[in-house]
Amino acid sequence: MTQPPPAEIGMPVDKVDTPALLIEMAPFERNLRLMADRARELGVALRPHAKMHKSPEIAALQIALGAAGQCCQKLSEAEVLVEGGTEDVFVSNQVVGVRKIERLVNLANKAKISVCVDDQTNLAELSTAAATQAANLDVLVEIDVGSGRCGVRHSQDAVTLARAIDQSEHLTFAGLQAYHGGAQHIREHTKRRAAIMSAADKVRATKAALDSSGISCSKVTGAGTGSFEFEGETGAWDEFQCGSYAFMDADYGRNLMEDGRNFTTFEQSLFVLATVMSQPEDGLAVIDAGLKAIAVDSGYAVPHDLPDVEYVGASDEHGKLTLGSGTPLLSVGDKIRLVPGHCDPTVNLHDWYVCVRDGVVENVWPIAARGAVF
Amino acid sequence: MTQPPPAEIGMPVDKVDTPALLIEMAPFERNLRLMADRARELGVALRPHAKMHKSPEIAALQIALGAAGQCCQKLSEAEVLVEGGTEDVFVSNQVVGVRKIERLVNLANKAKISVCVDDQTNLAELSTAAATQAANLDVLVEIDVGSGRCGVRHSQDAVTLARAIDQSEHLTFAGLQAYHGGAQHIREHTKRRAAIMSAADKVRATKAALDSSGISCSKVTGAGTGSFEFEGETGAWDEFQCGSYAFMDADYGRNLMEDGRNFTTFEQSLFVLATVMSQPEDGLAVIDAGLKAIAVDSGYAVPHDLPDVEYVGASDEHGKLTLGSGTPLLSVGDKIRLVPGHCDPTVNLHDWYVCVRDGVVENVWPIAARGAVF
Repeated sequence: MTQPPPAEIGMPVDKVDTPALLIEMAPFERNLRLMADRARELGVALRPHAKMHKSPEIAALQIALGAAGQCCQKLSEAEVLVEGGTEDVFVSNQVVGVRKIERLVNLANKAKISVCVDDQTNLAELSTAAATQAANLDVLVEIDVGSGRCGVRHSQDAVTLARAIDQSEHLTFAGLQAYHGGAQHIREHTKRRAAIMSAADKVRATKAALDSSGISCSKVTGAGTGSFEFEGETGAWDEFQCGSYAFMDADYGRNLMEDGRNFTTFEQSLFVLATVMSQPEDGLAVIDAGLKAIAVDSGYAVPHDLPDVEYVGASDEHGKLTLGSGTPLLSVGDKIRLVPGHCDPTVNLHDWYVCVRDGVVENVWPIAARGAVF
Repeated sequence: MTQPPPAEIGMPVDKVDTPALLIEMAPFERNLRLMADRARELGVALRPHAKMHKSPEIAALQIALGAAGQCCQKLSEAEVLVEGGTEDVFVSNQVVGVRKIERLVNLANKAKISVCVDDQTNLAELSTAAATQAANLDVLVEIDVGSGRCGVRHSQDAVTLARAIDQSEHLTFAGLQAYHGGAQHIREHTKRRAAIMSAADKVRATKAALDSSGISCSKVTGAGTGSFEFEGETGAWDEFQCGSYAFMDADYGRNLMEDGRNFTTFEQSLFVLATVMSQPEDGLAVIDAGLKAIAVDSGYAVPHDLPDVEYVGASDEHGKLTLGSGTPLLSVGDKIRLVPGHCDPTVNLHDWYVCVRDGVVENVWPIAARGAVF
């Protein structure tokens, strides 16, 4: 089910077959360095989220710049990362069910693996599996800090779970997972900041409850590309999990900074290259990139460097573009770049990254954990 | 980038790893037979659309029931089908660019291949490539019948293209592509019917224009699961391209039939199996199937046989379910089935079909053309 790569190394980018997922290497590398530097300045470890890039190659670049390891959201992603050479992977999520837990514990015999819990029964299953296979597993308690998704709701529940972890011979309580996903795309700077200040209060309350129960919490991990400066400001987090900063997307670009401008701390480095396949009437072009090439959950893709062109409709294999009066003529066969609305699920639609520098294909990287959903 | 299958043959369905894409074989087979019978009764050939199922196995079942071959939307899908044994594939779309056209013509030396055009330059490139490789290619002219996507807008443009095809030594004018995608999900029966009646007028006008130019049109192909009864009623189509009928989805289920009931001509046979991974508060369950397991372009998935449960939020790897007061208790580890909002892009997220009969895994089929976007 893997497709052949749409490009060869050394090829000019305008010869790349479409739709293709491009990484512009210069801004991509600047993004990687900028985040690594910023985490260091804030005195926080960086463990970027591989659910976004799904690539052991990118994991290795991030780790070479000082990252502590990688996060991922699915056990199958962790398996691909470990297979690709990543030595320290945190599954920032619950791993549920006997079959999955067995795989998790197997993996913990090959690399340093940590995982989240928010449920007693799940924890008991982890404990049994680790004991059976004589594996050691770091377990973090996930607390809900405002997203209302997974995570215990009350600090006393976190204490109960942390204590149970520490009482299990093969498990180690390794801290708190405290990620506020819902805050990442709050547009207004003050409101986004307020959401994280409130999350920090929940973190502090849970740490205090652990402390008064005599349980030591060695780490609080969380934060994303939209909010990490705020988590940094609070001093309540020890580790950042940002992922999208490496590529960016149109949805993050709609966030606002303190000065009211759009979020431009990181540069757009990910693009979908598409071809105009039909130009059936004035003002309309149809491209070969629809729902199966660009995710639409966070809005349509935005044509890059074509200010008067709008992506107005996606069907399975087609995108409809309206061409404003100021648009240079687009003809059948012309290639254009699009900024995806949401990078994570867009990456998951492709098998290959086409890495581009100065208009030439420098590399073709497999998206090795594409489709790693379980 | 291919993931291992989430199931083994003979396994009870409740042991299947999640998220997984299930086909319930009994309703699936009934759907295949019903559509084959209906097309026969209407005196129309059936060429089901493989853009939906992406599977040579399913293509073979449809052809065994009398289908003329397969449609697909992307050249890479056609390559996978031919590799998998399908002998007659119609790319119901434009194939643009020298590199792609070369592949298309290569494929035409291995199987019966047809393709659409709506542009003179593209047609000239096809003609040159076919001549260079001494291949024969059937070419259909795509006409817009109401979707406003690809396809020529005026019958005279169809005549011009058809004539140019016939003048090319290695190309044969094989008819008209006339598919009204926009009509498929018009909810009201009378409005949906009206859209197809209007499409039929465009088909007739184009056929008349071809006729008066002395060009014979051997085939009009189009129609989808939401509208084929209307195309059948008009007598203006010779071939149906329905795809979704085999699986169905929640969006098609929202169409209304003549008697005002929801569209139930075909049965739901495709499901995403998911696991409850967190149940952090009353009334809420979080499942392991989010944006990367179920497409959301046509609305969220609908929990199957759980009337008081609603899928209310999808993030990359999570789905949030609200549990109404009448809901049986859902616990961490419980498995539930979901009806995808839109079958095509959901199928494209998975590597395997888990084929289920009477609660047991009967087969595991590769979704061989998953990710075939170019």
